[in-house]
Amino acid sequence: MTHDCSFLEDLDLADDQLSFAEGRRESHAADWGAEQTGDGVVPDAVVYPERTADVSEILAAATERGVPVTPYAAGTGLEGNAVPARGGISMDLTRMDEIVDYRPEDFQIDVEPGLIGSAVDEYVADDGLFFPPLPSSGDISTIGGMVATDASGMQTVRYGEIVDWVLGLEAVLADGTVVRTGSRAIKSSSGYNLTDLIVGNEGTLAVVTEVTLELSGRPQQIRGGRAIFETLDDATEAIADAIRTEVDVAKIELVDDLSARIANRYLDTGLPDAPMVFLEFHANHGIEEEIDLCRTIFEEHDVLRFEMSDDDAEMDRLWKARRELAYAVRSYDADLEPLHPGDVTVPLDSYPEIVRETKRLADEAGLLAPCYGHAGDGNLHHTVLVDPNDPEQVERGEAVYEQTVERAIELGGTVTGEHGIGQGKRKFLEAEHGAGGVDAMRRVKRALDPTGTLNPGKIFPETEAE
Amino acid sequence: MTHDCSFLEDLDLADDQLSFAEGRRESHAADWGAEQTGDGVVPDAVVYPERTADVSEILAAATERGVPVTPYAAGTGLEGNAVPARGGISMDLTRMDEIVDYRPEDFQIDVEPGLIGSAVDEYVADDGLFFPPLPSSGDISTIGGMVATDASGMQTVRYGEIVDWVLGLEAVLADGTVVRTGSRAIKSSSGYNLTDLIVGNEGTLAVVTEVTLELSGRPQQIRGGRAIFETLDDATEAIADAIRTEVDVAKIELVDDLSARIANRYLDTGLPDAPMVFLEFHANHGIEEEIDLCRTIFEEHDVLRFEMSDDDAEMDRLWKARRELAYAVRSYDADLEPLHPGDVTVPLDSYPEIVRETKRLADEAGLLAPCYGHAGDGNLHHTVLVDPNDPEQVERGEAVYEQTVERAIELGGTVTGEHGIGQGKRKFLEAEHGAGGVDAMRRVKRALDPTGTLNPGKIFPETEAE
Repeated sequence: MTHDCSFLEDLDLADDQLSFAEGRRESHAADWGAEQTGDGVVPDAVVYPERTADVSEILAAATERGVPVTPYAAGTGLEGNAVPARGGISMDLTRMDEIVDYRPEDFQIDVEPGLIGSAVDEYVADDGLFFPPLPSSGDISTIGGMVATDASGMQTVRYGEIVDWVLGLEAVLADGTVVRTGSRAIKSSSGYNLTDLIVGNEGTLAVVTEVTLELSGRPQQIRGGRAIFETLDDATEAIADAIRTEVDVAKIELVDDLSARIANRYLDTGLPDAPMVFLEFHANHGIEEEIDLCRTIFEEHDVLRFEMSDDDAEMDRLWKARRELAYAVRSYDADLEPLHPGDVTVPLDSYPEIVRETKRLADEAGLLAPCYGHAGDGNLHHTVLVDPNDPEQVERGEAVYEQTVERAIELGGTVTGEHGIGQGKRKFLEAEHGAGGVDAMRRVKRALDPTGTLNPGKIFPETEAE
Repeated sequence: MTHDCSFLEDLDLADDQLSFAEGRRESHAADWGAEQTGDGVVPDAVVYPERTADVSEILAAATERGVPVTPYAAGTGLEGNAVPARGGISMDLTRMDEIVDYRPEDFQIDVEPGLIGSAVDEYVADDGLFFPPLPSSGDISTIGGMVATDASGMQTVRYGEIVDWVLGLEAVLADGTVVRTGSRAIKSSSGYNLTDLIVGNEGTLAVVTEVTLELSGRPQQIRGGRAIFETLDDATEAIADAIRTEVDVAKIELVDDLSARIANRYLDTGLPDAPMVFLEFHANHGIEEEIDLCRTIFEEHDVLRFEMSDDDAEMDRLWKARRELAYAVRSYDADLEPLHPGDVTVPLDSYPEIVRETKRLADEAGLLAPCYGHAGDGNLHHTVLVDPNDPEQVERGEAVYEQTVERAIELGGTVTGEHGIGQGKRKFLEAEHGAGGVDAMRRVKRALDPTGTLNPGKIFPETEAE
């Protein structure tokens, strides 16, 4: 699947905007999930656009020649989203990382896609503003990647997803057409909502070249801390109950007993190996009343400890096990690796059920399944630990993974709350959206990218047409 | 432009689901705005589907025969959105008005499109829930119409638009394909966001047959009232300042001095003919602090009166001039009619400017322009009063209207914040979205409705292809 990309040398690009070097190409065939999602192939060339006109010129030329183009930035995707499935060109957008315009009086900022997410927060901090939907990887992943997958994170329970904070964007279609969507007004019913269509498109409909983000004022009161429960059911039921009661939490994170054990060992915390819930509260008024309400609900579910603080250092300390959990899991056992790290998201009322089910499936398969997630959204990061050199164990792990995802669909949920479909979850698309839904998505894909230039082999289960 | 619709008699419909009677057909050629948007023609038949299968069968048969289908419900649109531009079939969805499923534990309700909006509020009230984005016409307009135009209203400043409260939907494409979008999970990054694409499509991409709505808990504290300012600039600057300071308002409505005069005369209020701002606050904690903050900001802008109450009857009294404003304007002068009632929406920082500009344009044209709107969103309902029998006056009115809309675009705003494009605002679509944006919308339209069956003659400026 090699494509002749020499035509790139004839475009209006500087020498350092184009590379055919093996090392560069190979580094663009990797992301956090690509190894396990399969199909990733090394691109034939890497280009580094520096402006919208570069993106447009490259796309038009590639489309004319039938060469695939896959947008790439930080490479922090979990589903092989940004790794070429068909070779061709990797379009690396990390050089387009400018803040184009900042309008604090309107709570708006226009940024390029290669900008690291946390850079937005830093830029606007002096005005008392912040960008609430940043995912946990916000200090290494880019705005473009977040927009491409409609990312979300710990604060989504209070503030929503990326799509809720994108007012409009500039994007380039496969034929080079530059499109501007949305406006600077905070609401509109003018024409089709192309903004929300392009958010979450995973680079299959258009390459985003600029984004207008909304910002929020920082809350005047912040408290953070941790609760420890006796059983996992107690923890998940307490969370569901708190959300149903509309306790105003800004973060509410579940860490199951196995994950707690892994984190406790890694960090030598001295805490019990029991299910934990990590909390943060944001408010301008009445934060203590919200915390009291939460505590009361948690006590009804036999909470063992409930510790909250308004001191930054103490909050950090209380949150440590959650913050370092991903590292702890990765270093738990040199022989074991997390299989298909990613998430499912279900309606809140089904949250205890999906957690129970995931644990049950793993237990029956004799595998360890550390579970954690943005529980207030019904989000569960589930994985099983397997020895990649033991095919039989991997096979059992795959079965647990598939059954968990299928169970999320049965519960009315989604196969991915925040990481996109990429290559890894294509096989579940039709089970979630039905044949009619997938067909409508395919029609939209063909309408905007009839030659299938953009990121072929992603999202859709079969790949001939795309 | 007559279409043979006799094929409808061969479909699996009861006798009373189909009408060719002139009265029925004529009643479906009218909505609140059709008279002024032009082009509306009487449909050749009216059908009343009662289930999704009916919608699918009718659409498939109509598409096969090249007969246009325009969805219709309450007829409360302002832009001729639901009035046929090309005859054919008016599909009246008011019989599909069931509540299909209600899941209070998940804050979700599934409803059919013909349900009146306020019926949702009534149904869930006993559980302490409500549906926040209802527009002012919520007690007469339908959920389907709100979804079709991505409506919004007074509470959008705190709670967002319709699109923010639609989790998923069922819709039928022109060829009869039934599509289910979204899920019951509160977030997802699985595939393209067809939900948000169909919300606001004005019946040009699909006919919505079921909607999953999110609900919210009722706030524990509510206060409402009114402020009166000396000048319009004081009022608009005070509003912009309050929103910039993130005063937590649930409603913040501007009524200009002319509108105040009209309302005062109509209601005999004894109030000064001065610009007014109507406010409502929702909170679970600290509502008095928010009101005090708002009052302080308003005082910096020389507010003359600031009256707030927690008593229902008193709140009603304070709000009366706002509530009855539309009736007051319509009955102001028997010879004058509001020309093109509708809205533009601009970034908040430009709100004082668009209000000033609208008044200036009307003054220069020697016309009366009562202005009011959901000011916290940057929304302005602007109109000029003209004598429809005086062509020269109408022409001056048209010029004011067009210049106001164009100015909103220049300010980075949108030509319609909440009423859709319909027929009335097609001519502005390209100025707002650019040729690239409109072309992308057209491609989506052709992909999902290649024969142009659904609501032709709407949204897009030229109409041959659609």
